[in-house]
Parts: sequence; structure tokens; C-alpha cells
Amino acid sequence: MRLALLGGTGDIGEGLALRFARDTDHEILIGSRDPEKARDAVADYEDDLEARGLEADVKGFANEMAADRADVVILSVPPYHVADTVEAVEDELDEETILVTPAVGMKGDEDGMHYHPPGVGSVSELVAEQAPDEVPVVGAYHNLAAGKLADLDLEFDLDTLVVGDDGDAKKRILDLSNEIEGLRALDAGPLANAAEAESVTPLVINIAKYNDDMHDVGVKWI
Amino acid sequence: MRLALLGGTGDIGEGLALRFARDTDHEILIGSRDPEKARDAVADYEDDLEARGLEADVKGFANEMAADRADVVILSVPPYHVADTVEAVEDELDEETILVTPAVGMKGDEDGMHYHPPGVGSVSELVAEQAPDEVPVVGAYHNLAAGKLADLDLEFDLDTLVVGDDGDAKKRILDLSNEIEGLRALDAGPLANAAEAESVTPLVINIAKYNDDMHDVGVKWI
Repeated sequence: MRLALLGGTGDIGEGLALRFARDTDHEILIGSRDPEKARDAVADYEDDLEARGLEADVKGFANEMAADRADVVILSVPPYHVADTVEAVEDELDEETILVTPAVGMKGDEDGMHYHPPGVGSVSELVAEQAPDEVPVVGAYHNLAAGKLADLDLEFDLDTLVVGDDGDAKKRILDLSNEIEGLRALDAGPLANAAEAESVTPLVINIAKYNDDMHDVGVKWI
Repeated sequence: MRLALLGGTGDIGEGLALRFARDTDHEILIGSRDPEKARDAVADYEDDLEARGLEADVKGFANEMAADRADVVILSVPPYHVADTVEAVEDELDEETILVTPAVGMKGDEDGMHYHPPGVGSVSELVAEQAPDEVPVVGAYHNLAAGKLADLDLEFDLDTLVVGDDGDAKKRILDLSNEIEGLRALDAGPLANAAEAESVTPLVINIAKYNDDMHDVGVKWI
């Protein structure tokens, strides 16, 4: 498969790119609004992978071109760029392309981070509303510890939650996610359940803030 | 210390009673609206503990009397009984009594469970609003796997999140919780952060619903 990471130059994008490149046979396309920035990120990821004796199958593109070529398009952009990113690439999407959304709406204050979803209930549902009707939308990778993900020297044992209304698309993202070593993907139900999965993200930030020796916190459901 | 479990005849109350009785030196008071029901539950808990060669220091009372005698009062009642339980016992509380709230507002539909907090933002904040001003309120034990907790044959390795505005009271509940074998208590910040901690409860129910071989799911933050 070809996986496009739009906004693949950011922190969660970097970690997913490196782990997918190392642990799977899929072709990785890094997308950015600025293709030059995508290619720079690819050069960094290749250095990181090659330093470990791994051959990298990672390429950099403008978001539209990355989306056009991909079977799975992961919107690893900040929540306030989700809507315009979907708009920018919607002509390149069809019923064969799974659109994956990891973004979470949050608001910070002096107490910590708080879940702050869009009016429709969750970013996942917002993406589903904005994407062309025939494009299956799946929420995933909301609560991954980005730093742990991006550090290939680190072995981890983490879970990610997957939500979606299209059973086949959800199953494919569950299977794809389970290909990453140490990552277990769990089904959290349809998109209507996305808010509960997304709201773990401000919580892990609060746990990191209030406890010594915890930072970049991930989660395991047991 | 004396710990009162109001509604201590229910599932989370049972688990906490058994674990506190087994793993700590604290005196456990089971409270119920019906003292006879509390004493019946105590008889069951004593059987369970004595079958393991453990002497039980557990007693049953009406909620008011349990609250009056306790240093820590845990409101292990369903969310729709939180307000009237606080009202029933408020004359027995003072600044020396820590009021602990594990309840979570939820609404179920065909997709799963959804977080459904009261207007004030969370059950923890509702309790703080309803309790006398001088009584410190702490949110804890929201996301414990009740069946695992109540099965003393089971060793577990689970986390619980603790929120509160009174630093000393929160610290005492963190320390108390850490006395339970296999339980790690983490600070999730002030009461303003309670919603993010509470909303994990519908999520664990959804994870149990949608994944094979997962039931009575708990959580570990790593």
C-alpha cells in the first residue's frame, strides 16, 4: 500500500513515517503544503533510517500529490488545519482512499489541557462531514506518545484506538496499525464514539504535567 | 484512618472495600441507605476475606453514620445518586473529612457509551459545588475495572487518576490509593481537569464492547 502522511513533517507525522518505514513494506509519502519542506523532512527520515542500516522507501510531495497517489491518507496536521487540508486534497480522494484523522481539538489554561471538540462532536466527525461522501473516514493515532514514536531506539508497548463507520476501512487501519512493532490497535466503535477516544489526548498531557518522571505519556488498555 | 464507602454494596464499592481491607490497615465502613443491606454486604466481604485467612476490619452502617465516623468518605454510588447522597451526609462532613467521588455521567446508545457530564462540567465539580465549602473534594477511582478489583485472586497492574483543588487532600488520596497492591495513583491536576479523567470510563466500556477477549478493561499510562 501507499500511505500518505499529510503534515508528515510534524511530530506525530515523523513518528508514524519512521515506524511505518521501518516495520512495514508500505511506501511512505510525506506531504506538506510546501513540497520543499516535505523533501527536507524525507532527507532527515532517510538519514535516521539509514543510520540503522535500513533502506527507506519515503518520498516527499505537496499534499495534493501525496493524497492522489495514496491508498491511505493520514491527516497528521494540527486540528485548525484539518478542514483546509481536507478541502485542499478532496479532489484526489475517492471511495478507494481511506482518510485517517489523528487530530484532537484542545484548549489549554493554567490548569492543563481540556478537550475542546468542534460543534459536530469530534474532529473525526468533522472530517467525515467535510470529506466527499464516498470517502471512508477513520479516526486513529490520537493518543500516541509522539516522542516515543519518533525515537526508533525505543521499544514500546502502546495502544491506539480506531473509530470508523465503514467496517472494511476500519479493519484495514486496525491491521495496518498492528504492523507497527509494539503497537496494538483496538476498535473503539463507530465515529459517534470518537469524542471519547480523542479526549484521552488532553488527559495524557495533564498526566505528564502533574507527575514526576512522566512525559510523552502513552496508554495501554488492560 | 477510617474509610467510609457510601454505596459500598455496589461493584466498585465492593472492590475497593476488599482491596483496602486486604492491603491496608485502615478501618473500612460500608455505608448504604439501608443499614441492613450494608451489614449483609459486610458479611459477604468478611466471608471472602476470611476464606483467604485474612481478618476483616469491615463494618456496616447507614450512610450518615458511616460518613460521621470516617476520615475519608468515598461516594461509590451511581451518578444519579451522587447529589442526594451528598445532601444526606453533609451534616456529618467537615474540613477534616475528604470527600472522594468516583462517579461518571454517561449515556448509552446503540454505538456505545458516551460521556455525559452535568452542566457544571464533571461529577467531581458537581460534588464540590454541593458539598459544604470547607470539605475538600477529590475525584478518584473513575476508571478502575470493577470486576478485576473485586476478584482478590487476581493480581493487577492498573492506574487510577486523582484530581482535586486541595493539595493536601489530593496527596492523602494519592498515598492511600498507592497502598492498594498493583494500583498506581497518578495526579491529573485540579478539579477543572476532572472531565478528561472521567471521560475515560465510557471509553473503557466501548473498548470492551468492540474487541474480542477484552472485558472489564482498565488502564495503564506509560
